[in-house]
Amino acid sequence: MNLLLFEAGELGPDGRVVLADARAEHVRSVLRAVPGQELAAGILDAGLGTARVLEVHGDRVVLDAKGLERAPVPERPRVDLLLALPRPKVLSRLVAGLACMGVASVRLCNAARVERYYFDSHRLAEGELRRQLVSGLCQAKDTLLPRVSIHRSFRRLVEDELEPEPRRVVADPGAPSASAALAGLGPVDRVLLAVGPEGGWVDFERALLAERGFRAIGLGSRVLRSDLACIAALGVVHEALRSADAGASVSATRDHA
Amino acid sequence: MNLLLFEAGELGPDGRVVLADARAEHVRSVLRAVPGQELAAGILDAGLGTARVLEVHGDRVVLDAKGLERAPVPERPRVDLLLALPRPKVLSRLVAGLACMGVASVRLCNAARVERYYFDSHRLAEGELRRQLVSGLCQAKDTLLPRVSIHRSFRRLVEDELEPEPRRVVADPGAPSASAALAGLGPVDRVLLAVGPEGGWVDFERALLAERGFRAIGLGSRVLRSDLACIAALGVVHEALRSADAGASVSATRDHA
Repeated sequence: MNLLLFEAGELGPDGRVVLADARAEHVRSVLRAVPGQELAAGILDAGLGTARVLEVHGDRVVLDAKGLERAPVPERPRVDLLLALPRPKVLSRLVAGLACMGVASVRLCNAARVERYYFDSHRLAEGELRRQLVSGLCQAKDTLLPRVSIHRSFRRLVEDELEPEPRRVVADPGAPSASAALAGLGPVDRVLLAVGPEGGWVDFERALLAERGFRAIGLGSRVLRSDLACIAALGVVHEALRSADAGASVSATRDHA
Repeated sequence: MNLLLFEAGELGPDGRVVLADARAEHVRSVLRAVPGQELAAGILDAGLGTARVLEVHGDRVVLDAKGLERAPVPERPRVDLLLALPRPKVLSRLVAGLACMGVASVRLCNAARVERYYFDSHRLAEGELRRQLVSGLCQAKDTLLPRVSIHRSFRRLVEDELEPEPRRVVADPGAPSASAALAGLGPVDRVLLAVGPEGGWVDFERALLAERGFRAIGLGSRVLRSDLACIAALGVVHEALRSADAGASVSATRDHA
């Protein structure tokens, strides 16, 4: 936990927060904080800065978080994820990692090779997803909760429910590399990344994605578990965006256009 | 399990393998294989191909794996990892993922911010590491076991025990992107990737790595758990190698040299 994250409603009118849960235990036992100390803190979906320890008791910790109300809000990650719903155990391992790597939103969707019972998992419950996402944000030092939505129709999602602008890419074992599909990104561009089910997309899905402008990015010939595929693909996409920000995309545009 | 992996010693003189463990259960209950069927199979550190099902019993499965003895051996991954030993729980989650992503070797090493007790973990036992590595290979469809070594002296490892040739990079939150450090790779080049402990390298370590030719690759300003940092960095390095193979490195050489 690199960050204490509060819900806006936890701040009292005087800007004080009283913690009595795992966060209090973390402040006491891991950080061994003392009154007067400033700790990295943030308000969910709002400012990121520090909070000052006021009191440390055996059952609770009191902090002054007034400063957070005027603290700057982090930049929203410029990557959105469209993910064929993984097995519940894989999903559960993955969700905190997605929030940690940085995604603005996660669209969990159906696909021919997604088992129907995955949609009934208790791990898809809103509270459970939120808990995992928050733990990823606390690790990454971010306050912006990725928006998660669940889509039972792949076709409707891809045909009607996606925003028009961003660069669209899909992880595809058949593509030689990711560089062509990610070439020429500009410094404010966003990327929508699609990652399929363990067994891959079926032809209809692959064709619909291609028709809707998703370019293939290769992750190599190894068969990756879908959580590894997501993290590796997010690593590659974020690197392409950083590289674009650093001005390195100019050469790529020239050579791949 | 996308591959049945055997130890060379499991093949009888007639090329038969008798399985009576979790692999037999997988053949019976997940693959529902029948005699005559060809299954993806490999011999550890040797050929990758198929084995033919001969008999399926309640307590064992018999396969003909003769063909594997002459099957082609996969290409060894062109990435080696130097990893500050993570917390035992993180290591255990990570090891199969490393084998799945593809590394030729993993050097687990000490660092100022590695706790001494990490080295005493039962998860570092050879059998336990091997079990995890094999599961990653079965997922990725590879037969080549990454070589794992444990180094209690970071300094000795970096000063005396590394091979001279490969491109050396180190994950560093301070670097703007990875593209400069990975530019200009050729199609047979290898990369040695160093990933530090959760708390980062200390100045001495960072300076020694720089002095020994490790160039910094940035993974962004988010604080990544060390398992995510490894997977994301491996994704970026493998992409740079694929991109070099696809001839895309020409432009990078020209612009960053």
